Amino acid sequence: MIRKLIAGIEKTDAPIVVGLDPMLSFIPEHIRNRAYEEHGETLKGAGEAIWEYNRGIVDAVCDLVPAVKPQIAMYEQFGIEGLIAFERTVRYCRDKGLVVIGDIKRGDIGSTSAAYAAGHLGTVQVGTHVYRGFDEDFVTVNPYLGSDGVKPFIRVCQEENKGLFILVKTSNPSSGEFQDRQVDGRPLYELVGEQVAIWGEDCMGSESYSNIGAVVGATYPEMGKTLRRIMPRAYILVPGYGAQGGKGADLVHFFNEDGLGAVINSSRGIIAAWQQEKYASFGGSCYADASRAAVLEMKEDIGAALASKKRLY
Amino acid sequence: MIRKLIAGIEKTDAPIVVGLDPMLSFIPEHIRNRAYEEHGETLKGAGEAIWEYNRGIVDAVCDLVPAVKPQIAMYEQFGIEGLIAFERTVRYCRDKGLVVIGDIKRGDIGSTSAAYAAGHLGTVQVGTHVYRGFDEDFVTVNPYLGSDGVKPFIRVCQEENKGLFILVKTSNPSSGEFQDRQVDGRPLYELVGEQVAIWGEDCMGSESYSNIGAVVGATYPEMGKTLRRIMPRAYILVPGYGAQGGKGADLVHFFNEDGLGAVINSSRGIIAAWQQEKYASFGGSCYADASRAAVLEMKEDIGAALASKKRLY
Repeated sequence: MIRKLIAGIEKTDAPIVVGLDPMLSFIPEHIRNRAYEEHGETLKGAGEAIWEYNRGIVDAVCDLVPAVKPQIAMYEQFGIEGLIAFERTVRYCRDKGLVVIGDIKRGDIGSTSAAYAAGHLGTVQVGTHVYRGFDEDFVTVNPYLGSDGVKPFIRVCQEENKGLFILVKTSNPSSGEFQDRQVDGRPLYELVGEQVAIWGEDCMGSESYSNIGAVVGATYPEMGKTLRRIMPRAYILVPGYGAQGGKGADLVHFFNEDGLGAVINSSRGIIAAWQQEKYASFGGSCYADASRAAVLEMKEDIGAALASKKRLY
Repeated sequence: MIRKLIAGIEKTDAPIVVGLDPMLSFIPEHIRNRAYEEHGETLKGAGEAIWEYNRGIVDAVCDLVPAVKPQIAMYEQFGIEGLIAFERTVRYCRDKGLVVIGDIKRGDIGSTSAAYAAGHLGTVQVGTHVYRGFDEDFVTVNPYLGSDGVKPFIRVCQEENKGLFILVKTSNPSSGEFQDRQVDGRPLYELVGEQVAIWGEDCMGSESYSNIGAVVGATYPEMGKTLRRIMPRAYILVPGYGAQGGKGADLVHFFNEDGLGAVINSSRGIIAAWQQEKYASFGGSCYADASRAAVLEMKEDIGAALASKKRLY
């Protein structure tokens, strides 16, 4: 699956993931009203509004980027109806040829992780029939439980040619509280990074890159530099660009010298672009065009940073 | 909410949680067949079988225990239909007066944790209406992202009088890989435990116990002893009894001298009791009675261990 992601990055020339993390407040009034007229101000109405909003954005950006990352929490908060919108979004994006990274941050003891892996990446058997639950291409995984919580996900990735991004150093302000604690003179996130590299060896998805990648926040560029070295064959999914403060110039060290190895996520900065002053002229009715403009700007920012990195070599 | 849990424990004299972690292979044939006849061998059929199976167990044990802990992964693996079974199970158990601990092990950056908290413990607003998604009483939370990933859950607990069990030392064999790493000469899980105690101060649910508890595996009794001391006012949810190897005698140090402070989970050992040799005479048709017998035996095991602890004081 990493091979498909890399092919998409090379084709679009955009190491960019669009984070589909909808909040009702991001959704233009005309979409919300239409959904509420049909389904009332209900959870179903909310789910319908989210789905329509997502579809508009996906249609507007799907030729520009290789991948999307729906954050399941934003759907799960609306219960079953929200999760139906999640499922429809995943399927629609896959049908459009996009790589879908389910940002689910699951992780549990072995048998439980196996169930999550089956539901999000693999299959379940019911009697003599086999089904797929949510069917993402990659999912994010929390490593706090150690190897036996992660390996069931890896096994399914091997069987299904799918992939993971394992949390190593997260983008939030307090991520250092535990992740940066010094263990034998080195921060914990480095040990997790080393383990990601080891786990990844059993799951090479291309000659250079493993199907097992890592999450490292754009907000910690110096740590990204170290982790890039520790996990040379792990693709790094980098959240925290844009709304959380990361900029193109901060990101160059997340990439390898081959120009690959990282993919940058922006969520609010793209999907709610129409609410920013810069893109206000689009208005709510053309919100998806505003998202397209924001992707193009992000692509330019990252492209320029990568070009100036190349000149350094 | 911890007050309600404690009241339930005192009333039933059973510091026991029944883990509702169904696998299709646990479900007696007559229940599966009935569901498949009605809905086919489909995800809906699987969800229906799980729900009927759970209902039988809940009916059989609800007067014996204060709480249940559905593990959402076991439902999520069947996609939307599985989650509908989860939702029905949560609602049914609450209607029966049981405390429901959603074993969801979520945790993310602040705004995302806020969405999980809203969906599982709190409310969401759609237009002028307010709804509840899954509406558990407690949920389990992963601490790897630090305070700003946990605090949105705590805020909702304060508003809604609900509670958390935060992963400190998990029951699985490889939990030590990161959790036991030495930080300034002490294992990481102790630092997490200290943080749980601090988080809990803002969320006292009774005079003696906080609404913010901890997860510590029965499989690590010595560590439980230390953590009991570090977090004196945190209720400890103890998984790993039975199928994972924990025994009553291992558990006494998880309790405080007041005889409270811990609640022991057993999943497979209770819900799939009818498949054990010991309870084989019940057969699949009386699977729920086998679960009841297993609860009674667990109650006796833990009661005897606690009584012998009391004699020591």
